[in-house]
Amino acid sequence: VAAITVGFAGADLANLVNEAALVATRRNGDSVTLPDFTQAIERIVAGIEKKHRLLSEQERRTVAYHEMGHALAALALPGSDRVQKVSIVPRGMGALGYTLQRPTEDRHLMRRQELLDRLTVLLAGRAAELLVFGELSTGAADDIAKATALARDMVVHYGMDDVLGPVSYADVQRRYFGMPDGIGPPGATGFGADTAQRIDAAVLELVQEALDRARAILGCHRAVLDRCADALLARETLDADEIAALTGDLAVSSGTPAERRDRRPVTA
Amino acid sequence: VAAITVGFAGADLANLVNEAALVATRRNGDSVTLPDFTQAIERIVAGIEKKHRLLSEQERRTVAYHEMGHALAALALPGSDRVQKVSIVPRGMGALGYTLQRPTEDRHLMRRQELLDRLTVLLAGRAAELLVFGELSTGAADDIAKATALARDMVVHYGMDDVLGPVSYADVQRRYFGMPDGIGPPGATGFGADTAQRIDAAVLELVQEALDRARAILGCHRAVLDRCADALLARETLDADEIAALTGDLAVSSGTPAERRDRRPVTA
Amino acid sequence: VAAITVGFAGADLANLVNEAALVATRRNGDSVTLPDFTQAIERIVAGIEKKHRLLSEQERRTVAYHEMGHALAALALPGSDRVQKVSIVPRGMGALGYTLQRPTEDRHLMRRQELLDRLTVLLAGRAAELLVFGELSTGAADDIAKATALARDMVVHYGMDDVLGPVSYADVQRRYFGMPDGIGPPGATGFGADTAQRIDAAVLELVQEALDRARAILGCHRAVLDRCADALLARETLDADEIAALTGDLAVSSGTPAERRDRRPVTA
Amino acid sequence: VAAITVGFAGADLANLVNEAALVATRRNGDSVTLPDFTQAIERIVAGIEKKHRLLSEQERRTVAYHEMGHALAALALPGSDRVQKVSIVPRGMGALGYTLQRPTEDRHLMRRQELLDRLTVLLAGRAAELLVFGELSTGAADDIAKATALARDMVVHYGMDDVLGPVSYADVQRRYFGMPDGIGPPGATGFGADTAQRIDAAVLELVQEALDRARAILGCHRAVLDRCADALLARETLDADEIAALTGDLAVSSGTPAERRDRRPVTA
Amino acid sequence: VAAITVGFAGADLANLVNEAALVATRRNGDSVTLPDFTQAIERIVAGIEKKHRLLSEQERRTVAYHEMGHALAALALPGSDRVQKVSIVPRGMGALGYTLQRPTEDRHLMRRQELLDRLTVLLAGRAAELLVFGELSTGAADDIAKATALARDMVVHYGMDDVLGPVSYADVQRRYFGMPDGIGPPGATGFGADTAQRIDAAVLELVQEALDRARAILGCHRAVLDRCADALLARETLDADEIAALTGDLAVSSGTPAERRDRRPVTA
Amino acid sequence: VAAITVGFAGADLANLVNEAALVATRRNGDSVTLPDFTQAIERIVAGIEKKHRLLSEQERRTVAYHEMGHALAALALPGSDRVQKVSIVPRGMGALGYTLQRPTEDRHLMRRQELLDRLTVLLAGRAAELLVFGELSTGAADDIAKATALARDMVVHYGMDDVLGPVSYADVQRRYFGMPDGIGPPGATGFGADTAQRIDAAVLELVQEALDRARAILGCHRAVLDRCADALLARETLDADEIAALTGDLAVSSGTPAERRDRRPVTA
Repeated sequence: VAAITVGFAGADLANLVNEAALVATRRNGDSVTLPDFTQAIERIVAGIEKKHRLLSEQERRTVAYHEMGHALAALALPGSDRVQKVSIVPRGMGALGYTLQRPTEDRHLMRRQELLDRLTVLLAGRAAELLVFGELSTGAADDIAKATALARDMVVHYGMDDVLGPVSYADVQRRYFGMPDGIGPPGATGFGADTAQRIDAAVLELVQEALDRARAILGCHRAVLDRCADALLARETLDADEIAALTGDLAVSSGTPAERRDRRPVTA
Repeated sequence: VAAITVGFAGADLANLVNEAALVATRRNGDSVTLPDFTQAIERIVAGIEKKHRLLSEQERRTVAYHEMGHALAALALPGSDRVQKVSIVPRGMGALGYTLQRPTEDRHLMRRQELLDRLTVLLAGRAAELLVFGELSTGAADDIAKATALARDMVVHYGMDDVLGPVSYADVQRRYFGMPDGIGPPGATGFGADTAQRIDAAVLELVQEALDRARAILGCHRAVLDRCADALLARETLDADEIAALTGDLAVSSGTPAERRDRRPVTA
Repeated sequence: VAAITVGFAGADLANLVNEAALVATRRNGDSVTLPDFTQAIERIVAGIEKKHRLLSEQERRTVAYHEMGHALAALALPGSDRVQKVSIVPRGMGALGYTLQRPTEDRHLMRRQELLDRLTVLLAGRAAELLVFGELSTGAADDIAKATALARDMVVHYGMDDVLGPVSYADVQRRYFGMPDGIGPPGATGFGADTAQRIDAAVLELVQEALDRARAILGCHRAVLDRCADALLARETLDADEIAALTGDLAVSSGTPAERRDRRPVTA
Repeated sequence: VAAITVGFAGADLANLVNEAALVATRRNGDSVTLPDFTQAIERIVAGIEKKHRLLSEQERRTVAYHEMGHALAALALPGSDRVQKVSIVPRGMGALGYTLQRPTEDRHLMRRQELLDRLTVLLAGRAAELLVFGELSTGAADDIAKATALARDMVVHYGMDDVLGPVSYADVQRRYFGMPDGIGPPGATGFGADTAQRIDAAVLELVQEALDRARAILGCHRAVLDRCADALLARETLDADEIAALTGDLAVSSGTPAERRDRRPVTA
Repeated sequence: VAAITVGFAGADLANLVNEAALVATRRNGDSVTLPDFTQAIERIVAGIEKKHRLLSEQERRTVAYHEMGHALAALALPGSDRVQKVSIVPRGMGALGYTLQRPTEDRHLMRRQELLDRLTVLLAGRAAELLVFGELSTGAADDIAKATALARDMVVHYGMDDVLGPVSYADVQRRYFGMPDGIGPPGATGFGADTAQRIDAAVLELVQEALDRARAILGCHRAVLDRCADALLARETLDADEIAALTGDLAVSSGTPAERRDRRPVTA
Repeated sequence: VAAITVGFAGADLANLVNEAALVATRRNGDSVTLPDFTQAIERIVAGIEKKHRLLSEQERRTVAYHEMGHALAALALPGSDRVQKVSIVPRGMGALGYTLQRPTEDRHLMRRQELLDRLTVLLAGRAAELLVFGELSTGAADDIAKATALARDMVVHYGMDDVLGPVSYADVQRRYFGMPDGIGPPGATGFGADTAQRIDAAVLELVQEALDRARAILGCHRAVLDRCADALLARETLDADEIAALTGDLAVSSGTPAERRDRRPVTA
């Protein structure tokens, strides 16, 4: 139940091309087409389809709302990567559903606001569950892990917490003793206790704020959320066009991030 | 003295099939029957019967109440997996008795309330000992370990503690320094002291609440508990039908969780 | 100077049988008799007799009172294992004396009160020294280590401390990071500071209470203690019958634990 | 997006000579010229040019202001190494742009003020982003890591924090137990908690002060910053002469540090 | 500059016999005599004489008072081992002088008071320096290490601190996780912070009290101390008889500990 | 930029003799003379001369004042080892200059005051920089490391801090668990938090006091300091006689420490 942003580079890219060629071969295609690439991406990112993994009706509803939560938050936040597909067909590696985002342009620098938007999309699955069912499930564990990792990077690598300042808290241990990575005098953390606690608090603030923001966004678009979740339960997979047709009033999903930024919706 | 929920997958499933085939062979059966599978499950989950391990009468009574505690709590909580068998025949691996639960459907997502129910069933053995004998024994050690692990997952992986929020506290260490699992700069816990203490407190709250809830449930059904424990002491093993006959007023043990949910009893 | 409860299982049992056979062979016996087993147990548990290790008279008196402290506490506490032999013949492995207890029945579950009794017996050697000589000696080091280990298990494995609750504090480290035993990211204790301190405090409370209780018991039976210590100094070894003859007013040493429980003496 | 001061010694110097010889060979040159050395330095320090890595227009603007921030701060601080080149041509190893400083003389001792100036230059990239875009980006991660390392050395090795005094906090662990580097009794940090926290606070103070100072400098020269960033966006690379032409009113970039010190500008 | 109590056992004893035989051979003796053994003990315990190591006159005076401090404290405390020899002839292994004590009987149990006496003798060297020169020197480092180790054993192994109680604080780490000695999950100390601090405080109290006591004893016998130090400076070595002649008013140095206990002097 | 006290022993002494023989051979000398030994000592202690390492004029001035700071403090403190040579010729291993002290007698015991004097000499280089330039430089890093190590030994090995008392805080870790050096259960520091912090504070107090004392000494002799630094800048090396000629009013540099002690100057 994970929000996935696809970006390939180097060896991964080579792998993608091979996989797409295999897909094309399997369908006896003359050339590798865009659908071949899409299918290859899904296989690599979410695993092979596992149609025989039968979820209960309640589980399917939870997954459907969870995935549409990711998708609608991404649509509502103009700085997010474009939503290409939402699916509740279970796949390998424990994925019960997934939302596929594809970046419209390569990114090399990320602004703080863009990272906050990404956090919000990651937590929108849980936000949808809270909004619709009023209860937490285990399905957000992977999203939580990803959001925690991103928020921690913001605090620890990118100097984006006001209290902790423009300081790197990441490799104190290693350079401090001038030793090769991963080998060092044990026990020397290099952090004060207040620092360690502030890192935790800063991460929590970022993630909690993102969850609250996702709930606010989905609360504003509850009718759209219900409509999309119903459609997803019926069809199991929705592509970008189908989603656009269902979310007319949120039709901010096309164009470049820069274009979308100009028509940013009320989401605070 | 453990509450066991059976769920097999992958290699375990293959192992189960082999074991059931062996059981059928041993009894010279023509085909592998459901009883063969049940016996195979018991061998795999609780070990081989050790009838020669002689418990004192007091120990047998303690075990009987302990196991019926698990079973009655599972019956009383509609979200729990179905109780299939309760036994006080000692088996290998230190098990003095066991309660076998079999899920009526495969589960992929668990709601918070369902996890709380599972915690309650795990602690209902100790609750029964407290209720009947007014004293703790060593027999709950394994239940306590399982309940602690589950409660910790709720707090640390699933973001189910309000104070600690939707943050993963599980693999800070590993990803923080970008190193392979199990190798990292020693001493860097990645947790603040308040965080570490709150994790402990949150786990304790969950487990303590589950114990209190189990005591309340068993207190409401004390007469049934005594009747079942007596039957278990007499017959050593009770199957689902025998339990149902003994617990008429708790007859919520059949049907799917969804059906049972609708006739949820008063439990705090 | 250790209170030893004998219980053999598996490989240890095989070892005992071999050792007893050797004893019988050495005395050219036709068959392995019960005395052969007793001698074998002593060799295995307390080492070979070292008569040439000469203790000063003061040391012998200290050891005699220490050992009779263990023995009388075990006699006075009906839930304790039966005292079979008390000796002040030094043996290998540093033992200056020992009290041999043999359980009258196999135990699979222990109640909290039984564990408290066991703690009391373990600390009764030190209690006797305090009572008689008014001073501590180094002779209780092994008892203290054993009592600490037992008290810690009560707190950490068996959930027997009210503050720490029905939570396992034992393998947080290991399962937390999903790594094999003994290999894990150093520095991550998984305990909050308050938890660690409460564990220490709970252990101390249990052990201190047991020492106080042992002192109260021995204080009530001071005359018996003196009489037994004198006899032990004179004869060097006392068996169960000799002890029973000397402790008539404490004649609660025979029968099963259940029988003895009914005639429980006043012990605070 | 890193401020780089070039200084070669020993093996690095030999490597530089080889690389410059290769550059000369590739262009079929008769001798190794200064431009060959410059090109060799860039290859070694910032990696091979990656012109095909396409940044968005917004990213290019961010990088251009970031790099000019480094360059202008270095020009404004008379104790800094001379700016030789600024580039926004992406190179290997993740560098989206770079500012090349070359020391006008070898340095063996650094005064505290010179180190503070170096910190200020390191953080001037982030300062420019804050000033112009009002938002933080991920582009300063490497600068932050370098500034943290330098500030930590000032505190821990050079005794430059008033509270922590002329004490070395760097190899307590190692020499304390008289063991070879990197091998020591784990867990013994040798730091008190207050010490560890003060080290963190002292590092934060140094780095934060440097960021504030960089913002003040760039705020004073905003017009020059805009002019230079525009030129850099247009030409992609600016050399020392081009920068000097654009920053006439900051023309303090030539001469030795001692000469420049005499005409030190207003920098708070 | 160490107070040394000699006790040999097992392999050490065999080594002693060999060494004594070598000494006898070197002097062409017909048999191994007691003086041969004494010389062998000194070689083993304090190293070979290093007469060519020239101490300054001030150093020799410091050493003489230091060693006589050990000796007089041992004489004044009836529970101490007998002083056999005091020397200021430097020997190997850094020893600038030594006081040889030989136990009059083998010890198997030590009472708390006897351990306190031993601590007092260990710190009496430093006490003499403080009393006579009013200043500390580096010469007590080895005594301090030994006293610390003994005091820690009293607190941690022997349960001799009232606050920490009859609890073993020594092998928490090892048994806690059920692993072989020395291998365990790093970072898990098993101590609460208050416990760790109390251990330190208890050790400090014991050692400080012993130092104060040693100063009081030597203060009472200052004239004897001066007289003995002068004699030691003149003769370099004093044996038991010579010491007895010099310390007539302290003539408590002969007889068994039990005898000496009866004429215990005033020592606060 | 280090204050070096020369003392050779054992293998180091053999090495020195070999080196001096080589020096003599190189100059075709018939015998090894005292100048050969001096040159050998310098090669061993400070590395080979590196005349081609060109320092800026400002750096040379800093080094000259730094070294004369060491030398004058040593001259002013009668307990210090004799200053034999001061040089600002750069040598290998990063040394930009050095002050060579040679002990007039072998030392086996050091009094607390002598260690404080040694600390003062170590920090007098930094004191000179502060006094003359009003600013700290990186040049004192090695002095700081040495002073920290010495102060820590005073606190941790020699029991010279009043609060921490006559307790060894050095090898708690190792002996505590009875394991060989350097191998032990990680994470178990054996120190309480207050202890660890007090160690840091005690070290800081000693080092800070020494720096203050060095500043007071050099402040009293500022004119001499300037005169000597000028001479050193002119001649690059000053030997004991040249220094004595320049520091007439400080003529306390000859004779034994005991002689010098009698004419101790005013140094606060």
